[in-house]
Amino acid sequence: MTEASDPLAAHADLIRADGRTADQLREVTIERGWSAHAEGSALISFGDTRVLCTASFTNGVPRWMSGKGKGWITAEYAMLPRATNTRNDRESVKGRIGGRTHEISRLIGRSLRAVVDTKGLGENTVQIDCDVLQADGGTRTAAITGAYVALADAIEWAREQKFIGQRAKPLIDTVSAVSVGIIDGTPMLDLAYVEDVRAETDMNVVATGRGLFVEVQGTAEGAPFDRRELDSLLDLALVGTTELTIMQQAALAAAGE
Amino acid sequence: MTEASDPLAAHADLIRADGRTADQLREVTIERGWSAHAEGSALISFGDTRVLCTASFTNGVPRWMSGKGKGWITAEYAMLPRATNTRNDRESVKGRIGGRTHEISRLIGRSLRAVVDTKGLGENTVQIDCDVLQADGGTRTAAITGAYVALADAIEWAREQKFIGQRAKPLIDTVSAVSVGIIDGTPMLDLAYVEDVRAETDMNVVATGRGLFVEVQGTAEGAPFDRRELDSLLDLALVGTTELTIMQQAALAAAGE
Amino acid sequence: MTEASDPLAAHADLIRADGRTADQLREVTIERGWSAHAEGSALISFGDTRVLCTASFTNGVPRWMSGKGKGWITAEYAMLPRATNTRNDRESVKGRIGGRTHEISRLIGRSLRAVVDTKGLGENTVQIDCDVLQADGGTRTAAITGAYVALADAIEWAREQKFIGQRAKPLIDTVSAVSVGIIDGTPMLDLAYVEDVRAETDMNVVATGRGLFVEVQGTAEGAPFDRRELDSLLDLALVGTTELTIMQQAALAAAGE
Amino acid sequence: MTEASDPLAAHADLIRADGRTADQLREVTIERGWSAHAEGSALISFGDTRVLCTASFTNGVPRWMSGKGKGWITAEYAMLPRATNTRNDRESVKGRIGGRTHEISRLIGRSLRAVVDTKGLGENTVQIDCDVLQADGGTRTAAITGAYVALADAIEWAREQKFIGQRAKPLIDTVSAVSVGIIDGTPMLDLAYVEDVRAETDMNVVATGRGLFVEVQGTAEGAPFDRRELDSLLDLALVGTTELTIMQQAALAAAGE
Amino acid sequence: MTEASDPLAAHADLIRADGRTADQLREVTIERGWSAHAEGSALISFGDTRVLCTASFTNGVPRWMSGKGKGWITAEYAMLPRATNTRNDRESVKGRIGGRTHEISRLIGRSLRAVVDTKGLGENTVQIDCDVLQADGGTRTAAITGAYVALADAIEWAREQKFIGQRAKPLIDTVSAVSVGIIDGTPMLDLAYVEDVRAETDMNVVATGRGLFVEVQGTAEGAPFDRRELDSLLDLALVGTTELTIMQQAALAAAGE
Amino acid sequence: MTEASDPLAAHADLIRADGRTADQLREVTIERGWSAHAEGSALISFGDTRVLCTASFTNGVPRWMSGKGKGWITAEYAMLPRATNTRNDRESVKGRIGGRTHEISRLIGRSLRAVVDTKGLGENTVQIDCDVLQADGGTRTAAITGAYVALADAIEWAREQKFIGQRAKPLIDTVSAVSVGIIDGTPMLDLAYVEDVRAETDMNVVATGRGLFVEVQGTAEGAPFDRRELDSLLDLALVGTTELTIMQQAALAAAGE
Repeated sequence: MTEASDPLAAHADLIRADGRTADQLREVTIERGWSAHAEGSALISFGDTRVLCTASFTNGVPRWMSGKGKGWITAEYAMLPRATNTRNDRESVKGRIGGRTHEISRLIGRSLRAVVDTKGLGENTVQIDCDVLQADGGTRTAAITGAYVALADAIEWAREQKFIGQRAKPLIDTVSAVSVGIIDGTPMLDLAYVEDVRAETDMNVVATGRGLFVEVQGTAEGAPFDRRELDSLLDLALVGTTELTIMQQAALAAAGE
Repeated sequence: MTEASDPLAAHADLIRADGRTADQLREVTIERGWSAHAEGSALISFGDTRVLCTASFTNGVPRWMSGKGKGWITAEYAMLPRATNTRNDRESVKGRIGGRTHEISRLIGRSLRAVVDTKGLGENTVQIDCDVLQADGGTRTAAITGAYVALADAIEWAREQKFIGQRAKPLIDTVSAVSVGIIDGTPMLDLAYVEDVRAETDMNVVATGRGLFVEVQGTAEGAPFDRRELDSLLDLALVGTTELTIMQQAALAAAGE
Repeated sequence: MTEASDPLAAHADLIRADGRTADQLREVTIERGWSAHAEGSALISFGDTRVLCTASFTNGVPRWMSGKGKGWITAEYAMLPRATNTRNDRESVKGRIGGRTHEISRLIGRSLRAVVDTKGLGENTVQIDCDVLQADGGTRTAAITGAYVALADAIEWAREQKFIGQRAKPLIDTVSAVSVGIIDGTPMLDLAYVEDVRAETDMNVVATGRGLFVEVQGTAEGAPFDRRELDSLLDLALVGTTELTIMQQAALAAAGE
Repeated sequence: MTEASDPLAAHADLIRADGRTADQLREVTIERGWSAHAEGSALISFGDTRVLCTASFTNGVPRWMSGKGKGWITAEYAMLPRATNTRNDRESVKGRIGGRTHEISRLIGRSLRAVVDTKGLGENTVQIDCDVLQADGGTRTAAITGAYVALADAIEWAREQKFIGQRAKPLIDTVSAVSVGIIDGTPMLDLAYVEDVRAETDMNVVATGRGLFVEVQGTAEGAPFDRRELDSLLDLALVGTTELTIMQQAALAAAGE
Repeated sequence: MTEASDPLAAHADLIRADGRTADQLREVTIERGWSAHAEGSALISFGDTRVLCTASFTNGVPRWMSGKGKGWITAEYAMLPRATNTRNDRESVKGRIGGRTHEISRLIGRSLRAVVDTKGLGENTVQIDCDVLQADGGTRTAAITGAYVALADAIEWAREQKFIGQRAKPLIDTVSAVSVGIIDGTPMLDLAYVEDVRAETDMNVVATGRGLFVEVQGTAEGAPFDRRELDSLLDLALVGTTELTIMQQAALAAAGE
Repeated sequence: MTEASDPLAAHADLIRADGRTADQLREVTIERGWSAHAEGSALISFGDTRVLCTASFTNGVPRWMSGKGKGWITAEYAMLPRATNTRNDRESVKGRIGGRTHEISRLIGRSLRAVVDTKGLGENTVQIDCDVLQADGGTRTAAITGAYVALADAIEWAREQKFIGQRAKPLIDTVSAVSVGIIDGTPMLDLAYVEDVRAETDMNVVATGRGLFVEVQGTAEGAPFDRRELDSLLDLALVGTTELTIMQQAALAAAGE
């Protein structure tokens, strides 16, 4: 996709600390139906990052949406206190939710809503919960990717329960997400925590199964980045989301929980 | 242990909904070292109840304890929002911790401190976190039982790191916990959620490996209970904690994570 | 009840710092109708511990209980900032309620509900408030004992106001509570603060007038306790609750406020 | 003080619902040393209004005041939930302090500081707590009047403990407070709740024993008021604070608790 | 109004740091219709104090007022973090509103309600917001004075929209406010921040256009004050509110936004 | 910049509701030194969007940064309650900060830090406050653009005060931001609120004066977007930030406040 003469692409065969090449995802596993209670659920791993995603289906929508014949999808993200290398205080104990948590919760919600036809959902709500059990970089992208699987299962459950019509197709596409970043001048896919810390530029890309962008968030952690760097990161991200889409489909094609 | 003529004991061969006898624990599994980051950890299951217990070891103690040459153990308990059959709002979102959460966090902390010689720990802190990933009754007793394993591993880790003396024995006993209750007049061990809801009397018993009581909390959910019922529940609970002690020791005897 | 050869009982004639024997309550006073506004109220003292208990009767129940023909009893416990020897910050100023407060509020509510037939109450709510004006140990047990008197008066008031039926008997028993503990190997009744601090084992027992247990909460503050110690504490506690029951009845038999 | 021709004064012999004349205080009682723990305390009643005032003396001052050789006086006011005719939710449960509570706490603090020479206090803090046990109008004025007595006792205690110099005179005057209001065109002293509700104009006056004003807060509850009405209210208030000063001095002259 | 022989009045020709005489207001400007969105708005300056006042008109009243045929006026006051000389933490970040903010919000609301006939308003609500963009003393008095203008415009807007009757006269008077204080023995009008800090006595007076008092709040910051000082402050305040009334009327008479 | 054959560019001469062409900014004004107190300040307008930006310089850094010889820049964003078309509740009253506020505050802080050499700043802190006085779309981009001007002035002030070295150059570039979006298939620059609501894709771009990207945040509000759309939005955004850079420099070149 990027030309051979591109200096950014020159390092494509570089081997990373964990043995991956620059354009390689970590090992991804998706354990569907992990939760006995939720209408849909998936325990997803991107390497050592593990996120438990549940989708809770309930009839009705928040009052401000009522009467429009549309459904609602919302999401909350959180991290267990010792998901990380050093323990973080619980937000419930601090009595307030931090900016990062808010930001990621909103991102997950927007990402899923982008592939849902809320009319097809009827006046029902799906509440997504993504709880990071263990963190090693890319928790928000794993969360989005796993949440899609949980959502798909919850919608299937609702169809079986006849809470939504048999012909309704609330899911108009699939959605997955991956992080990319530039480290020592090399664009790399799916950063582990030690890489994320060193990245000059860090980008999270949410894309649909058809390869369209839902969200692009690029941040200069060190020096600002130019257009060519941006372009090569976007290229690399789509490589990752394409692979993740295949894994989501494989998980959903497997016999249910 | 209870005599044959005891009407309460008459139902000892009763078969429960899940096929257990009245004095039988659910299947218990202890997955040691589940967390890549924590100094000690265990994913414990009591049937469908699954609790992730981590022990975070840090040097130093809270200011109010400083300079006494003693360590400190504290615990926090929480439940994922969809651990239960219907989703509960997050306490971080509500901005306050509920009474039940507080109560159980304090119980776990007291239970572990009862088997720790804080002088042996030196001026170090172990923070226990028990997060219920899935709930089916007995979450607090599973949490205590798993937390002990995580604590033992964190202390071993600290010994290897020379943060505590090689001969120090901070753990003076083991500790485990189980619920018991009277259902339709029959005392039963280790109640699953559907049983817990029906129990007239509900008791949580925390006991040491040597069979001494650390905490006894009995509550009449329906009708108040008499002394003989109380006695038979205590008998039954010690049957359970004795078995749990053996499982804890087996888990800790296995080769480390 | 305990045999003469019981080593625990051997100290029954021991004289305590305040001149009491091991099985003696502190001086208990119950000032009924202390509040001009509440439907029922009692200022209760266990020695220097003084708790103002009010019962507020209102028509209707919380929404989640509505339509079941049952009433609701709930309780809140709190302590004035200078009820204790050194001042505690107000929970309203801290913006959050502590675990101990939550725990005791819930205990009081459960204890009272255990002796109430909520159908007899109709769809009405009684809100109990127990505010510790001065603390010297045993505040939760004094609170439960006084709250019963306030509750009984509020129910009587509701009957006079015809909010509940003339023949309805919402109170199916009386309820009182006392603390017991083992100090230097001796079980003692109704611990004052200086005793409570020294107790190896501390137990709060809530019992009905008929001598049945509503709640038993025993905690090893120092070393874990064995079955015989537990038994002797339960014996002693029932001695205390029996006396408290008599005092409650005497207070309620006296001409009203 | 007001002339005979003053129409506002014409009702001076009017008899109020509780039998008082317009310029008469309710029965005032001051129970010094009510609290066993606080360095100074008073349970004060203005009729059915009862406020428990404690003064907690501690060495040291808040960090921002440190090193100036001055002391600090601060105050908190609160009301028990059922102090009033209908129950109010606890501010600790709501998680935030209301505007009225804040306002009165600040007023009490300012009023006491106005009669204290903080240099005489040395670098010590007196924390005043005024908890309304029962409310029937005038709770803030009773609180200020009682808090002065508690403060005086705490300072005397500190002198005995040698925390402040034997010759230091931190109290440069006394302070008391009373409410006044215009009801049906008549200025009245020390309004009970039923009067307060009906008052067109309501004023709280804090004055020193020497008759100087510390705080004057007049509010038109109904129609705005003119200068003559204001003048007659101020006259009446000083009648009240003069009497309250005498009662404070009598209470402090009596042999200690 | 005060006699020539009055020592307090002797300094009337005194020149202040900013060149004003003792009885002179700072420069006052009222920029009506500053906000593009609000139904009524005014950016008011008292010298360097600048407050943005908006009035938001909505149909309906809070539930507890519903069905009485009356409207509701409420107000909130706040300060930008760097409105003052040194930055203050945001109350939103602290998670709680301070006592001073509460106090002033309540004062503004009461002051406006005193000149409103709520029946004339119908069941509609006007929410006043006063945000201090820059502070140099007198922020609450500028807020009240500006809020009246915003309120008048919002009511006029509602009349045009036919949300209130064409003949309804919800505004029964105008209202403005000013601070006065005694500095080095001299009563002064409209204190700037540097004066406010030095004032021995500080008073805020809210008065109607007809010269009646709505609120009088005098506080001894240093020594308590006597009746004559109080009288001279009240005289001076009415001089200020009379001038402010004229400026409000001029602003409202000008062609609308 | 985009080719004539680009269908997205075909609408470049389209006239928008407010008379602008697709690639035209709204009228931008920058009022430097608006605040009398802050070390740097700017009132910036992007059309009807008005944001007051202040920069507060203080010596010292937060404890976790201390001793590294580096400075710190942090930012807070907020909106007045009636900045928008319908009033929003204050976050201080709700007691918690919303996700959107958190997100934007963090974005502003990151954007400014990207052009600051924190070593050049020494151990000093600049706190940026961006308060939206009136909102009509693009509040975050106006905030970043204005905050840069306030920051530059605060740094200049610090240099004059000798808090930072005369040769230190903490600012290594300038930074500005603009929104772009696709409406009815046409990419448009600097969306007003009515346009923002209709945009299928919405992107905020933060770029330096040299034309490098600091932050790119693109969101599919309606349908996901493809790579070509993304490219044309990035092109358009750089047109906007180039113009904004010129305006910032002009404002800073003008004689100081």
